[in-house]
Amino acid sequence: MHISELTTPALVADRAALDHNLATMAAALPGARLRPHVKAYKCTALARRQAAAGHTGFTCATVREVEGMAAAGLGADLLLANEVLDARRLGALVDAGHGVTVAVDSEETVAAAADGGVQRVVVDVNVGLPRCGCDPKDAGRIADAARARGLEVRGVMGYEGHAMVVEDRAERAAVVERSMELLVAAHELVGGDVVSAGGTGTYDLNTWATEIQAGSYALMDTAYAKLGLPFRQALAVLATVISVSPTWAVCDAGLKSLGMDHGDPTIPGATVWFCSDEHVTFAPDDGVRVGDRVRVLPAHVDPTVAYHERLHLLDGDEVVDTWEIDLRGW
Amino acid sequence: MHISELTTPALVADRAALDHNLATMAAALPGARLRPHVKAYKCTALARRQAAAGHTGFTCATVREVEGMAAAGLGADLLLANEVLDARRLGALVDAGHGVTVAVDSEETVAAAADGGVQRVVVDVNVGLPRCGCDPKDAGRIADAARARGLEVRGVMGYEGHAMVVEDRAERAAVVERSMELLVAAHELVGGDVVSAGGTGTYDLNTWATEIQAGSYALMDTAYAKLGLPFRQALAVLATVISVSPTWAVCDAGLKSLGMDHGDPTIPGATVWFCSDEHVTFAPDDGVRVGDRVRVLPAHVDPTVAYHERLHLLDGDEVVDTWEIDLRGW
Repeated sequence: MHISELTTPALVADRAALDHNLATMAAALPGARLRPHVKAYKCTALARRQAAAGHTGFTCATVREVEGMAAAGLGADLLLANEVLDARRLGALVDAGHGVTVAVDSEETVAAAADGGVQRVVVDVNVGLPRCGCDPKDAGRIADAARARGLEVRGVMGYEGHAMVVEDRAERAAVVERSMELLVAAHELVGGDVVSAGGTGTYDLNTWATEIQAGSYALMDTAYAKLGLPFRQALAVLATVISVSPTWAVCDAGLKSLGMDHGDPTIPGATVWFCSDEHVTFAPDDGVRVGDRVRVLPAHVDPTVAYHERLHLLDGDEVVDTWEIDLRGW
Repeated sequence: MHISELTTPALVADRAALDHNLATMAAALPGARLRPHVKAYKCTALARRQAAAGHTGFTCATVREVEGMAAAGLGADLLLANEVLDARRLGALVDAGHGVTVAVDSEETVAAAADGGVQRVVVDVNVGLPRCGCDPKDAGRIADAARARGLEVRGVMGYEGHAMVVEDRAERAAVVERSMELLVAAHELVGGDVVSAGGTGTYDLNTWATEIQAGSYALMDTAYAKLGLPFRQALAVLATVISVSPTWAVCDAGLKSLGMDHGDPTIPGATVWFCSDEHVTFAPDDGVRVGDRVRVLPAHVDPTVAYHERLHLLDGDEVVDTWEIDLRGW
């Protein structure tokens, strides 16, 4: 099928760029050194490609992602890198033989894990981003509480998200180092084999973690593109030009097909003016015509993908595969 | 069911507030004076409530919305207030006996409507918002082109979206007046019975339109709340507090459950710091505990609803109904 036959807006990924990204990461962080984060793409077909590249443990952000990965036969070692107060659905997966580990950062989340039937946890440590994670000096206490409930404590995790967006590489490395000093100190209090951290922006800077939780590298977005990483922009939202005025044009992507928290998307060869629910208004450098197709590059991959039902894989302008975005919802 | 049993994040609406909003609008714009815009809520169950309140013609933004409304038995008079280059799915609905009208603003979209088997159009006119819509002085030419293709031209539409966000009511009214002068002039060139325009922010200021395309009024958001309209905030994303630190807490809503283009959501009794994919970090005025439920009020209703599979209707803390968000996608 040619891309002109796709109903727009359509989520598309360049197969060559995706293959390059997967291969580049697998060379840098082979096998279990990478625990790909499925939240970035919510697609078991893409996860299967990562598993084929050697990464068989995965990171998830929601219970639904854990369930979907398990249902797809990718449940050997799933880390829910997030806190939950109701772990019963996770416990059901454990009962069914899947490998599920959940993050805990409080006595309440320890209790929820134990009550829900999860058997393995990591202690989530705050390494500088004000979000989840216990104070590093409390990590040993949380681990003790978990062991007291019969849980296996596999180690620690700590996400240096505040480092991801630092454009200067040396500054970014410094933030990673400070963060990981906190995580390593917590790890000494906790024990276990796992020090899980990192992301696409720090995948080669974080040498303290035993495994890196990167996900965005596979499809990429314009925010990460600013960091000069070796990953190519694979993802776009394909749109149709539906209206042309003297100084602007409008295509049929919009707020419901693009994650907007990192700002407006980019259209190569044009200046984006603003987005509406089902429209992007843009000024093309050269003329466009009604019916033309344009590729809209999202600023943030994760909340973009979450709006779409499927991802079309492209070889040039040919659609060579279509993958379900099957890990949406909660 | 009590709301504590809902899996979070969960899209919830206060039934009393929704009922108030529907009744208030039906009193102001009875029957066909309102053509509710389903893009705001993407839910045929909610549309059915509007139909019961007397509004039996609806506005849609996507082909999928038109198809879903028709399938739900609400297809008597559906206006796709948007341009499409492939109208074949709309033509199939016409063949099946549904009432479908589509917006056109160019010879290409006229041709697409005719080629696709749609029989009725309105001419979409640019009334000041740089988006779709022809120049007002071209409206007669577009109408002639449509009639030459055998299409019935029902009239004009023109969305004064640039007026919606003007907080001062008098200024807003002035923008509406200037916009509608353009639309009325175009209508004189086009003919037909329909002058379709307006939205929640101008529903009582736009006295030129024969029908108002408001949708957000039903559920409301914090952006529209600034306008001092008589509609109540019905919509929230229910979230669970999953982590508490000394000066902040984190709940399990985030970028994938909230439309972010109008900025951060609001949590009553707290200051929102920032949102991540599955987290809102906030500083509560008073203490919160892990496991507490909080209501996160979205800044923009439309792209928020589009992330969710269902909407739970609440009477206080009781879930009294659950509606599918069945008009998502394209």
